[in-house]
Amino acid sequence: MASASSLTVSQAVLARSASAPLGGAGQSPSSDRLSVPSPRLPTFSGLKSSPAAAAPAASAYRRLRRLAVPRPIRATAAVETLGPSAAAETALVDKSVNTIRFLAIDSVEKANSGHPGLPMGCAPIGHVLYDEVMRYNPKNPYWFNRDRFVLSAGHGCMLQYALLHLAGYDSVKEEDLKSFRQWGSKTPGHPENFETPGIEVTTGPLGQGIANAVGLALAEKHLAARFNKPDNEIVDHYTYAVLGDGCQMEGIANEACSLAGHWGLGKLIAFYDDNHISIDGNTEIAFTENVEKRFEGLGWHVIWVKNGNTGYDEIRAAIKEAKAVKDKPTLIKVTTTIGYGSPNKSNSYSVHGSALGAKEVDATRNNLGWPYEPFHVPEDVKKHWSRHTPVGAAVEAEWNAKFAEYEKKYKDEAAVLKSIIKGELPAGWEKALPTYTPEIPADATRNLSQQCLNALVDVVPGLLGGSADLASSNMTLLKKFGNFQKDTPEERNVRFGVREHGMGAICNGIVLHSPGLIPYCATFFVFTDYMRAAMRISALAESGVIYVMTHDSIGLGEDGPTHQPVEHLASFRAMPNILMLRPADGNETAGAYKVAIVNRKRPSVLALSRQKLPNLPGTSIEGVEKGGYVISDNSSGNKPDVILIGTGSELEIAAKAADELRKEGKTVRVASFISWELFDEQSPEYKESVLPSGVTARVSIEAGSTFGWEKIVGSKGKAIGIDRFGASAPAGKLYKEFGITVEAVIAAAKQVS
Amino acid sequence: MASASSLTVSQAVLARSASAPLGGAGQSPSSDRLSVPSPRLPTFSGLKSSPAAAAPAASAYRRLRRLAVPRPIRATAAVETLGPSAAAETALVDKSVNTIRFLAIDSVEKANSGHPGLPMGCAPIGHVLYDEVMRYNPKNPYWFNRDRFVLSAGHGCMLQYALLHLAGYDSVKEEDLKSFRQWGSKTPGHPENFETPGIEVTTGPLGQGIANAVGLALAEKHLAARFNKPDNEIVDHYTYAVLGDGCQMEGIANEACSLAGHWGLGKLIAFYDDNHISIDGNTEIAFTENVEKRFEGLGWHVIWVKNGNTGYDEIRAAIKEAKAVKDKPTLIKVTTTIGYGSPNKSNSYSVHGSALGAKEVDATRNNLGWPYEPFHVPEDVKKHWSRHTPVGAAVEAEWNAKFAEYEKKYKDEAAVLKSIIKGELPAGWEKALPTYTPEIPADATRNLSQQCLNALVDVVPGLLGGSADLASSNMTLLKKFGNFQKDTPEERNVRFGVREHGMGAICNGIVLHSPGLIPYCATFFVFTDYMRAAMRISALAESGVIYVMTHDSIGLGEDGPTHQPVEHLASFRAMPNILMLRPADGNETAGAYKVAIVNRKRPSVLALSRQKLPNLPGTSIEGVEKGGYVISDNSSGNKPDVILIGTGSELEIAAKAADELRKEGKTVRVASFISWELFDEQSPEYKESVLPSGVTARVSIEAGSTFGWEKIVGSKGKAIGIDRFGASAPAGKLYKEFGITVEAVIAAAKQVS
Repeated sequence: MASASSLTVSQAVLARSASAPLGGAGQSPSSDRLSVPSPRLPTFSGLKSSPAAAAPAASAYRRLRRLAVPRPIRATAAVETLGPSAAAETALVDKSVNTIRFLAIDSVEKANSGHPGLPMGCAPIGHVLYDEVMRYNPKNPYWFNRDRFVLSAGHGCMLQYALLHLAGYDSVKEEDLKSFRQWGSKTPGHPENFETPGIEVTTGPLGQGIANAVGLALAEKHLAARFNKPDNEIVDHYTYAVLGDGCQMEGIANEACSLAGHWGLGKLIAFYDDNHISIDGNTEIAFTENVEKRFEGLGWHVIWVKNGNTGYDEIRAAIKEAKAVKDKPTLIKVTTTIGYGSPNKSNSYSVHGSALGAKEVDATRNNLGWPYEPFHVPEDVKKHWSRHTPVGAAVEAEWNAKFAEYEKKYKDEAAVLKSIIKGELPAGWEKALPTYTPEIPADATRNLSQQCLNALVDVVPGLLGGSADLASSNMTLLKKFGNFQKDTPEERNVRFGVREHGMGAICNGIVLHSPGLIPYCATFFVFTDYMRAAMRISALAESGVIYVMTHDSIGLGEDGPTHQPVEHLASFRAMPNILMLRPADGNETAGAYKVAIVNRKRPSVLALSRQKLPNLPGTSIEGVEKGGYVISDNSSGNKPDVILIGTGSELEIAAKAADELRKEGKTVRVASFISWELFDEQSPEYKESVLPSGVTARVSIEAGSTFGWEKIVGSKGKAIGIDRFGASAPAGKLYKEFGITVEAVIAAAKQVS
Repeated sequence: MASASSLTVSQAVLARSASAPLGGAGQSPSSDRLSVPSPRLPTFSGLKSSPAAAAPAASAYRRLRRLAVPRPIRATAAVETLGPSAAAETALVDKSVNTIRFLAIDSVEKANSGHPGLPMGCAPIGHVLYDEVMRYNPKNPYWFNRDRFVLSAGHGCMLQYALLHLAGYDSVKEEDLKSFRQWGSKTPGHPENFETPGIEVTTGPLGQGIANAVGLALAEKHLAARFNKPDNEIVDHYTYAVLGDGCQMEGIANEACSLAGHWGLGKLIAFYDDNHISIDGNTEIAFTENVEKRFEGLGWHVIWVKNGNTGYDEIRAAIKEAKAVKDKPTLIKVTTTIGYGSPNKSNSYSVHGSALGAKEVDATRNNLGWPYEPFHVPEDVKKHWSRHTPVGAAVEAEWNAKFAEYEKKYKDEAAVLKSIIKGELPAGWEKALPTYTPEIPADATRNLSQQCLNALVDVVPGLLGGSADLASSNMTLLKKFGNFQKDTPEERNVRFGVREHGMGAICNGIVLHSPGLIPYCATFFVFTDYMRAAMRISALAESGVIYVMTHDSIGLGEDGPTHQPVEHLASFRAMPNILMLRPADGNETAGAYKVAIVNRKRPSVLALSRQKLPNLPGTSIEGVEKGGYVISDNSSGNKPDVILIGTGSELEIAAKAADELRKEGKTVRVASFISWELFDEQSPEYKESVLPSGVTARVSIEAGSTFGWEKIVGSKGKAIGIDRFGASAPAGKLYKEFGITVEAVIAAAKQVS
C-alpha cells in the first residue's frame, strides 16, 4: 500500500501523463530499439541495439499504474494532518531519505574522505526526484528520452551514487559504494560521466554543472522543436539540477542562467541548495546577495521551499508549479541544513568535506533513529525502490512504441532523429568538405572555416553552434539557418552573447545529451582563457565539442596584446585528450573539420587566422589526419639538409624560405605540424619518414610561444616564435618587428645546417 | 564666465568640499611630497620625489574656486529652461562633448582601425567625469589620492585617450592621437596601464575592468579605514568605471559586483553604457535579462539615466545621488546611442568596431555641425579644459599639505602609509622569512606558505589577501587579522567566496592602486583555469599579484581528475612575464615568497602541496632565487654520471633515487628547478654549472605534464610525469599507479646514463 501510494505522487501525478498506448515495443524488431545498454557512452560507430536484456515490462508498468491511487498534490505552504495511510507513506519516505543519508555517511566514512554534508541535506530533494518524479530506465542509462539530472554541486556525489544504487543502476552496486573514492571504482570523488553510467556530465568544478544542465535543456528544446509532431511528442523530457551556494557564486553560473532565461528553457528545473554554509563558514562572510532577485532579473521563475529537510510536500508542490511554468526555467530555492541529522556537526562547515568520524556517525544514527549496519538498505525501502526496474523498462518500452508510430508516419524525420540518437553520420559525409588548389585566392582560415561549417551542416544533422558575440568575426553563421531563440528553437545558430565560459559548458551539455549532437562554439583564441575550465571538462568528460578559435596570433594586429594569443597553443598541447589544430589553408581547414567531426570523444580546438593565407601546394586532408606531414621536399633518401616546420599562418613563411634556400642549392623539406597530438599517435616508421632522427637541422616557425618546440626541433634545432606579449600595430609590422619572417627562417636554417 | 560656471558644476559642487586649508605644501621639503611624475609606474625601490615640476598652484585653485558660482544640481528628471549663461555653458559642454567624439572619430579614421561607437555614445559621461567631477592632476598621473577611472569596455579607449588629451596629460598629445594603434605609440588598441600614464589598469578583455574597479575601490576603503583620522581623512577618492553590455554578460563582472555589493563599496560608481548593441547586433538576440533587478539583487544602488546622449544634468544628478549613497556601490544605467551623431551608422553594430569611412565622417560632421579639421580642438574648448593643469596641481598641493599635517600628528601611521604609497619595504624585511633544517618535521608546502604569509605580514604593511572559499584548505588566513568586511574594512583577510575569476581581477585592481599594496589570492591550482584571463592580465599589466595555488598535483588524491592539475605548470611556464614557482619544502617556500614579494612587476604563481614533504638537505632561499640549482652532488669536475631534476613534491623522490644510485657507485647530481623563468635569466656560466652541456644523462620527475621538459632534459634525457588526467584514489596509490616513483627514476637514470 505504501509503495503504491508513493507511486501516486510519482509517475501517475507529477510526471507527464503517459497517454500513448503502452506495449508494442516488445514486438518491435530489436534493431529499431534505441536502447544503449553499454556501460560507457556509445561509440561513434552507432548505438548497439539492446542485447538479451529483459523485454520492456510494459505490463508491469500498467499493473503498477493500476495500483496507483491518484491523490492531489498539496499546496506549497499547507501542511495537512495526515491520515493513517499517508502517515505510513511519509514514514516510508522518511526511511528512504535516511537510507540515502546513511549510504552517503557510510561511504564517506569508509573512504575517510568525501563530502557528507550535501547528501544529508539534499536527500529529500534526491528522493522526490529519483523516486517520484523522474522518468528513467535504470537498466538502460542511455535511453534517449530519459529525464536528465545534474548534480552541479558535484562534491556531494554520494547523493547521486546512493540514488543510482537504490534505483537499480548496475553501475552502483553495494561494492561500488564500499569502494567510494578508490582506485578503479565506479564511484570517484566527483561525478564522472565517463566512469559511471547514470551520471550525465562531469561536475565538481563549481558552476559547470548548472551550465551543462542549460545545455541539456537546450538540446531537448531544440530536438523537440525539430522533431515533435502535434500527434507525437517524441522528444519530451525534463532537466533537473542541484546547485549549491558555491555554484551560485561562480560567474559561469550567472552566464548560463542568463541564457537559460533568455531562451525560456521551461523544462529546466534547478534546485538551489540554500544551506548557508560554504567551506569557509557561513555564507554571510562572502555571499549576501539576494539570489531570488537576481534570478528574477535573469528571467527565471523562482520558488522558495522553506523546509527542505522534511518538507516533502513542499518540494513536490514546487516541482508541480515549476512544470506548470512552461516559458521560463525555474529555480527552486530549497532551504536545507547541511549535514542534517548530525547532532554536533550539522549546519557547520565541518560537515561539508570530511568524514563525520565514528563517534559522530553513531550520534547521527541515534539522532535519526537508524539502527542498521553500515551500507544497509532496509527491506521495505529496497522493495519500494525495486519497482523502478520494471517501471523504467515500461517507460522506455512505451517510448519505443511511440517511436515506432513516429517512424511509420514520419519516416524521414525518424531517420534523422535516429541518426542523432545513435551518433551515426551518412556514408560519405566527408565528401561534403571542400577541397582547394593553390590557384584559389588566398583567404583567412576563419572564412574557410565558415565554408566548412556551411558544407557540413548539410550532412551532419546534429551540427549546431555559434559564437560569444563574435559571429561576424569568427565567421560561424550557418547561412541556411536562423537563430536558436525562445520562439525559434528549431534553428541552429546559437547566440551565446559575451559569455565564453557559459558557452563552453553549455556545449558540453549539448554534446553529452545525444551522441549525434555536435556543437561548435567560437570566440577569439585568446579568450579561451575565459573558458578554459569548461574546455578541460570537455577533454576529461570525452565531450567532442568543436572550439572554433579565430584571431589566433599577433596576426590580428591593432587590437593589441590583450587580444593576441601567445602561449595558448602550448597550453592546449599540454592538456590531455584535446586536439589542438592550427590549419594553414583551405585543405588543412577542411582536414581539421574532418578530424573534429570524427573525434566524438575528444574536443578539438581549431586555431584560425584573421588574415588571408594562400592555398599552399602539398596540403591535404589526409596529411592533417596524421598531425604532421611533408608538404614539399627536394631531397632524396630521407636526408634533407634542413627541415622547416610551420603551423597555420606561418607554414606559408616556411614554404617561402624553402623556395629561397632551394634556389641556393639546399635540399629542404617543409613539414606542416597542424596537430602534435595526432602526430604523436602515428607509427614510429611514419614519424621517422617525416622527422628522420638523422636530420637534426630543423627550424620551426610559429607566431606563438616557442615553449615545447624542443620536442620537435630537438636540442640542435631552432624554434622561431614569440616569447613575450604582442603589441598594438598593423599585423605586417608586428611580424617584422618580432622577427617572424622568411629572412629569420633562412638565417636559422643556415645556422643549424 | 563659461569656464567658471562649468567649474561650478565641478569641484565646487559635486566633488567633496575641500575643507582643509590650502597652501603649505609648496613649502614642504620636496622629499616629503608623494608625487610620482615618472612616466611609468614607480619602481619598487620607491617613489622618486618630484623634480623641478611646477609647484602646486594652490593660489590658482583658490582663484578658480572664487570664480565659481555655486548653483544647485537639478533633479534627475527636471529639465529647466536655461537662462542665457546656463545656455552658453551648455553650448560649451556640447562643444566639448563633440570634441571628444571627433577626436575619437578622427583617430580611428586615421588608423583605419578601432571602435568609434562607444566614444561617440559615452562622450557626455566622459566629459562630466573628467571635466566636472573627478579630482586628478594631469601632470602627475600617479598622485596617490586621485579619483580612479576604469574603462571596462576597453575597446572604446579613444574615449579615454581623448579625455586625457583634453585634460592635459603629457602621455596623450596630438601626435599620440594621430598614431593611435601604431607600433610604439602611447595609444594602443586597448587601454594599457604600462604604456600610458593616466590609464589605471589594462582592459579590453570584457569584464576585467569592472572587477579591477572593485579592487581599486576595495583598496581605497581599506586604506581609508586603516589611516583616516576624524580630523584628517587622508585617503579619500572615488572609483569610476564605464562598462558596456559585453561586460555585463561576462560572469566575472557578476562575481566582482556581487562582492562589491557585499562589501558595501560606496565610493564605487559604475556607468553601464546601455546602448542595446553588441558585435552580433541588437542585444535582444542574447541579452534580455533585467540588469537593474540583478544589480539590486547584488546589493547595489541603481539609477537610470534615460537620456545619456545629451542629458548632462541627468548624468550630474545621478552622480550626486550615487555619492549620497555611502553604503552601497552605485550602478548608473545610462541609455545611450552607440555612434551618436553618425546619421547612417549610429545605433547599429557597424559603428562598434570599424572606422566610419570618409563619407560617413563627413555626414557626421554635417549632422553635428562640426566644421573643424580632423584632430582640431576648438580654442574655447581648449581654454575651458586648460584649467585642469592648475586645478590638478592645486588639489595635489592641498592634499600634500593635508599629508604634512597628518605626518605631524600621526607620525607612525604616516610612515606606514608613505611606505604603501611609495612601495618601500623596511630594510631587512626578508629576515622575517622562516628558514628550515632537515630535522624539522615534514609539512605540506601549503602549511609552510601560511607560516610565510604570517611572518611577512609583520613587515609588509601592504600585504592582504585571501582565498576563493578555501582559506582552510589553501591555508591563507592571517592570524593576527580579522576579515575585511563592510564594517571592518581595516582588516586584511579577504573572503572572496567561490569567485576565482573575480578574485584575480580584484587583486589586479588592488596592486595597481598603490605600489606598496601586495595582494595574494588562493584557490586549488587546477582552478587557475577559472581565473586564467585575470592572471594573464596580471602578467601583461605588470601587476605583482601573488597567486597561492595549493593542491598542486595528483597528490591531492581522492577528489579526482576534476581537481588534479596536470598541464597547469606547463601552461604557466609558457605564459610571458609570470613566475611559476613550485617549492619543494620549507626553505623553498620561503624563497618563493621572497621572489614573489620582490617581483612587483610580474605576478608569481606558487604551486603548493596538499601532502606533507620533508625538509630536504641543500635547499635554500638563495637557490630559489636562481630558479634552478644543485641541492646535492657526489661528483667532481662538473661531470656527474647523471643529473636528476625535480620540482616541488617530486624533489624528494629525486633525492631518494640519488641516494640509491650513489649506493651503487654512481655519481649523481640532484637539482631543483623551482622556477624555469628565473633559471632562464641566469648567466650562461651559472647555467653550465647546473646543467653542464656535456652531461646528457638527465632525468626529470614532476607530477604533471612532461610537455616542455625536453628543454631541460634534452633529446637524450627522460622526463617522468603524467600525460593523462588523474584519477580518484588516495595519493600514494596514484603515485604508484602513474609511475611517479623512486623506482621509475632509478630505472630511467640507468637507461639514460
